[in-house]
Amino acid sequence: MPHPADRPLAVALIGYEFMGRAHSQAWRTVNAAFETPPVIRRVIVGRDQERVGAAAQRLGWEESATDWRDVIARDDIDIVDICTPGFLHAEIAIAALEAGKHVLCEKPLANDPAEAEAMVAAARAAAERGQVAALGFNYRRVPALAHARDLVAAGRLGTIRQVRASYLQDWLVDEEAPMTWRLRRETAGSGALGDIASHAIDQVQYLTGARTLAVRGRLATLVPERPGEDGPEPVTVDDAAWATLELEGGAFASVEASRVATGCKNQLRIELFGNRGALRFDLESPNELWFLDATAPIAEQGYTRILVTEPEHPYLAGWWPQGHVLGWEHTFTHQARDLLQAVAAGHPGAFSPAFEDGLALQRVLDAVIASDAQDGRTVAL
Amino acid sequence: MPHPADRPLAVALIGYEFMGRAHSQAWRTVNAAFETPPVIRRVIVGRDQERVGAAAQRLGWEESATDWRDVIARDDIDIVDICTPGFLHAEIAIAALEAGKHVLCEKPLANDPAEAEAMVAAARAAAERGQVAALGFNYRRVPALAHARDLVAAGRLGTIRQVRASYLQDWLVDEEAPMTWRLRRETAGSGALGDIASHAIDQVQYLTGARTLAVRGRLATLVPERPGEDGPEPVTVDDAAWATLELEGGAFASVEASRVATGCKNQLRIELFGNRGALRFDLESPNELWFLDATAPIAEQGYTRILVTEPEHPYLAGWWPQGHVLGWEHTFTHQARDLLQAVAAGHPGAFSPAFEDGLALQRVLDAVIASDAQDGRTVAL
Amino acid sequence: MPHPADRPLAVALIGYEFMGRAHSQAWRTVNAAFETPPVIRRVIVGRDQERVGAAAQRLGWEESATDWRDVIARDDIDIVDICTPGFLHAEIAIAALEAGKHVLCEKPLANDPAEAEAMVAAARAAAERGQVAALGFNYRRVPALAHARDLVAAGRLGTIRQVRASYLQDWLVDEEAPMTWRLRRETAGSGALGDIASHAIDQVQYLTGARTLAVRGRLATLVPERPGEDGPEPVTVDDAAWATLELEGGAFASVEASRVATGCKNQLRIELFGNRGALRFDLESPNELWFLDATAPIAEQGYTRILVTEPEHPYLAGWWPQGHVLGWEHTFTHQARDLLQAVAAGHPGAFSPAFEDGLALQRVLDAVIASDAQDGRTVAL
Amino acid sequence: MPHPADRPLAVALIGYEFMGRAHSQAWRTVNAAFETPPVIRRVIVGRDQERVGAAAQRLGWEESATDWRDVIARDDIDIVDICTPGFLHAEIAIAALEAGKHVLCEKPLANDPAEAEAMVAAARAAAERGQVAALGFNYRRVPALAHARDLVAAGRLGTIRQVRASYLQDWLVDEEAPMTWRLRRETAGSGALGDIASHAIDQVQYLTGARTLAVRGRLATLVPERPGEDGPEPVTVDDAAWATLELEGGAFASVEASRVATGCKNQLRIELFGNRGALRFDLESPNELWFLDATAPIAEQGYTRILVTEPEHPYLAGWWPQGHVLGWEHTFTHQARDLLQAVAAGHPGAFSPAFEDGLALQRVLDAVIASDAQDGRTVAL
Repeated sequence: MPHPADRPLAVALIGYEFMGRAHSQAWRTVNAAFETPPVIRRVIVGRDQERVGAAAQRLGWEESATDWRDVIARDDIDIVDICTPGFLHAEIAIAALEAGKHVLCEKPLANDPAEAEAMVAAARAAAERGQVAALGFNYRRVPALAHARDLVAAGRLGTIRQVRASYLQDWLVDEEAPMTWRLRRETAGSGALGDIASHAIDQVQYLTGARTLAVRGRLATLVPERPGEDGPEPVTVDDAAWATLELEGGAFASVEASRVATGCKNQLRIELFGNRGALRFDLESPNELWFLDATAPIAEQGYTRILVTEPEHPYLAGWWPQGHVLGWEHTFTHQARDLLQAVAAGHPGAFSPAFEDGLALQRVLDAVIASDAQDGRTVAL
Repeated sequence: MPHPADRPLAVALIGYEFMGRAHSQAWRTVNAAFETPPVIRRVIVGRDQERVGAAAQRLGWEESATDWRDVIARDDIDIVDICTPGFLHAEIAIAALEAGKHVLCEKPLANDPAEAEAMVAAARAAAERGQVAALGFNYRRVPALAHARDLVAAGRLGTIRQVRASYLQDWLVDEEAPMTWRLRRETAGSGALGDIASHAIDQVQYLTGARTLAVRGRLATLVPERPGEDGPEPVTVDDAAWATLELEGGAFASVEASRVATGCKNQLRIELFGNRGALRFDLESPNELWFLDATAPIAEQGYTRILVTEPEHPYLAGWWPQGHVLGWEHTFTHQARDLLQAVAAGHPGAFSPAFEDGLALQRVLDAVIASDAQDGRTVAL
Repeated sequence: MPHPADRPLAVALIGYEFMGRAHSQAWRTVNAAFETPPVIRRVIVGRDQERVGAAAQRLGWEESATDWRDVIARDDIDIVDICTPGFLHAEIAIAALEAGKHVLCEKPLANDPAEAEAMVAAARAAAERGQVAALGFNYRRVPALAHARDLVAAGRLGTIRQVRASYLQDWLVDEEAPMTWRLRRETAGSGALGDIASHAIDQVQYLTGARTLAVRGRLATLVPERPGEDGPEPVTVDDAAWATLELEGGAFASVEASRVATGCKNQLRIELFGNRGALRFDLESPNELWFLDATAPIAEQGYTRILVTEPEHPYLAGWWPQGHVLGWEHTFTHQARDLLQAVAAGHPGAFSPAFEDGLALQRVLDAVIASDAQDGRTVAL
Repeated sequence: MPHPADRPLAVALIGYEFMGRAHSQAWRTVNAAFETPPVIRRVIVGRDQERVGAAAQRLGWEESATDWRDVIARDDIDIVDICTPGFLHAEIAIAALEAGKHVLCEKPLANDPAEAEAMVAAARAAAERGQVAALGFNYRRVPALAHARDLVAAGRLGTIRQVRASYLQDWLVDEEAPMTWRLRRETAGSGALGDIASHAIDQVQYLTGARTLAVRGRLATLVPERPGEDGPEPVTVDDAAWATLELEGGAFASVEASRVATGCKNQLRIELFGNRGALRFDLESPNELWFLDATAPIAEQGYTRILVTEPEHPYLAGWWPQGHVLGWEHTFTHQARDLLQAVAAGHPGAFSPAFEDGLALQRVLDAVIASDAQDGRTVAL
């Protein structure tokens, strides 16, 4: 199902909160920065008619709607972009794929394995028909991380033996911050683990190109109760999570995530150690990649701060001259570009991660939970 | 001339190269991020019909046109945004103001003082009619620098005594980089001085709130000739510039600019030293502001890295949650916001810098040139 | 046994390799920097007469000797400083304490628990007689870390909930680096765990003031064999180690150590997250402490880089004016100072860590090994 | 006059304040770290008998004395190390050289040109006799800066076009800090210029290997009066100084020095920009050198943080394993090493800077003053 070149691709966006705003920015911008099929922001969908109408106006969508099923049924929609809470992902994505749409689904893929497996099945069937089913792990499109991936793939690190990944935030430091659905297991599934450790683990696998074979994990709830509507209420998800991963090929990775890491606003930090080189990254300085070439003369060795703003760097040719940095939101524009190019090429496999990558990642997260439930013992995948 | 609330403001953009692309991004984005009057990208103007037509499509303008005079005459245009080379600024801006339009003019204001003075006169007359004449020094809208300005204005630095500002780039390091109009005095006026030292000097004055009283300057052409079309050709503008400024109130500032500063991609660096505090900034890490409170206990003193991504910081409430950084282009969106709000309020003086600030800055730059021509002697303003 | 004020304290140093050199530098320097009893470098002891004689001359000791028992028996020795390999610590330290000497013993306390317990018993008995038995964890005397401890103790971090500590080195990256006694379990006990994770864990407990209640641990040998004298030989200690610690009071700490962390020369990094503040440190920049005051106004919050070189900072008054940084070796001079002051005061408890702290730490390390041996399960202490 | 190998070299140190303490540390340490002739701390000299006696004991000198003339006359002194205030340098140094001693003289060489010229003459005559006359610019012996010099000399920067050097301190920020001899022209000569800009200018010339041909300078007294014994007193030296230097070979250097740069404790910062590479250094992180190789592939270019602690780096083989950093004081130990090796080799020219380098530097400083006195005009050298 390569896209017919004679008309723009029309997008329907389901959801208009934080992720909906970020995706809107991407759809609004992608044609100006990149050579892709032209795209039209056709309709934005939400449950509250008034609010979704205001969002349509503010975010620049032609129409708004309240029933995603109606929207999916329309002929004038090519791409369905799912930015709803996770528990709705499966139903919408499967329906959209079955209706012949390309789908972009925000992470996490789903809230439980059965749903995720059904989504993978639907995606496979749709791929046969040329439809793209894309999963939104936007940090794969930070140019510095895409460049890191390229350096690893080119062998500049040699054999990778050890990886460190952490994702630290601090928005739950205040013990008086109230209970929300994000802090209850039944609505959120897990806490820091699913929310942010998932990005860290995805990066470990993405950058090394290696699957996880086994994990040991630990979870902790460091602020055990918080003010609820009727007095103190127990927090039933993790505030922090730790894991060690055994990777294909023999490397080990450590992962740590926290939402009580005081002063860390959005620190996805990654370090890769190979026998020929090393890499370091921090999402709070997303335009910088630190690379060490261990084959250079000893007296000149050290981490090199690469300012990833050159036309030679991934995604940068679409933007500004060297030294003019990008921000967090650009990752979504890059994601939109890659999705559109996969659609245009009629090559669903060109976009990564696919739904099955999301399922594999979910299994790693589940193994962390299982390990913690077994007092830390190794859980194989 | 407060804007009538019943219809969007329509913009005409003159120019579609680097600055035209950046301004397009701003007009495309501003309504999604900020509470402003709605804006319409009505028409983009350029000399080459085919290329401006392609730009209109790519950058999302309703129409394209080749004659800016026709466009200015249209009733359905409210704002004229001038992104042409500097030598065209005066003619277009004056005409647009006289036609009753609000004007945003990219820096530099003009190429010579007489033009600049005429522009200032036109802006003053237009202000009487409620029209905004805005000058585009976008770095005033880096949130970290706007926050720096707020800290200074709140007295957190006490009396500022010394300022250091430099703007270092490296795109002329290669001595085989060919001659261009930017390297000839008759077309470019000056080199690093007007192009980038201008930003540094604007920041010195903006952040301290003090005018320059006198300067000593030096200019140097470090690569004296470059390959031209007919063999080596002399470079007749400066590759690097240095100045010391005496500021109102007794502080001194040093300024250095270079286009041969190897490895510096876009380093606008600023340091402010006061008797109660200090500030530091580098445009290559634009989301960070370093603040030192000299009244804190000695054992706890030091420069604090403020990640300027909180809703409490200037412009940030319109964007993403804390820790989600902005890029270079956002400065233009902030500029568009401030312009639209000044228009909506019918208060031309609400936008800074005004044309007269551009004229004052131009006089400082001219004084640097005059000082160098007099072997470095002090030139008063 | 307060020291008689009428004569200098005489030191005997056992060992003249790396640690012997560092301790010599400390004894040579301490009187010039600090108010302490005067000290005399009386005798240095080693097995090889020629080499220890050369060391005595080079390092500035009055005499050299080859039999530590003879030296301990001398009346003109006050302090015995043990810098031998770990397996000799117990025998020498116990004999010296029984001979009435003050003892400084390098880490680790001993190679097995029985020895360590005997040492603790000897130290307790000696303390009754006023003798100091000091354990050499020199990083407690990095001024920045001592300052960190003071800030924590003063409540500037509030309740600490999460700690991250890692010690990363890279001297085993090269898989052709040959086998040594350090890579065999029977001679070295463990690898990165005992050698450097020990420092990280000591800091966790020192800075928080909290004991470890339980651990989960993992060990890995990432380069499984190395060139031995007769061909490839298996490495039987860990190249890398990971642990999570539950601390008294409810905080969790993660620990990671590696000797194959490419490009990390000597990175003991520590982060402490409390509900009122946070701290960060990296031994590669030992004069810097990063402190975040979470009670400051949001718009001014961030990590403050404190250059720990002010007279108000621990140990600094003895050295140079502000801004004149110290190096790695100064930690030993500070250790010597604190030991001498404890001796002068006749107050053995004034020096920390004591032998019993070393035993407690050893038990944590053993628990990490035990946990790994049980597939990662929690081991309580 | 190569040193006879059969006895140690005996040092007399004149002065026991800050510099006297630092030099004592060097003489105390040099034999332990480096292969040099053995050295004896024979006598320390000061005017106040009681205080110099206490210093001798504390700093580890065999004797103390109050008359430097007597000391210079002694046969058992080989090296005279002058750490007195500058106005005494000439008299002592010339007398010591004439008495056949090797001399190490702290910077500045002298307080006026006539004295400096006489010192140079004495040094030349002494060099004929094999005596070393060494000038103490200790920052040439920061390993990172010595390594920088090596990289420049090896051509790794190509042609250097632009240099930036600044030395920023903040100990005069407080306007209530009282008057001292350092703030009066008649006793101090100049302010920030002679005290710290001198180091910056020495580094410019040392690192590039190029002499200064002409300067433009500016001086400013930013706190014009301070509390004296009898009320407010005018400050008659500069608080801050700026200069641009034209160097042999066509490069330009900017220099800035300040003692009111709030929050800058001891920031000697240097940047060198060449057509094949660049270097950056900050004395507050003295173990780090930042090197950019402009011939590397664009996508991998950036400043590399070299942790200058490898045995391959200058001076490091004498100290500790990689990653174990040095401090400020080690520069003096390196200076002592180089002096002793020049003495041992009987090769006075092996030590740099010589007295004549100090005279040349003084002339640059005088040219800055002369330029400022002529309203900033160029002064040739």
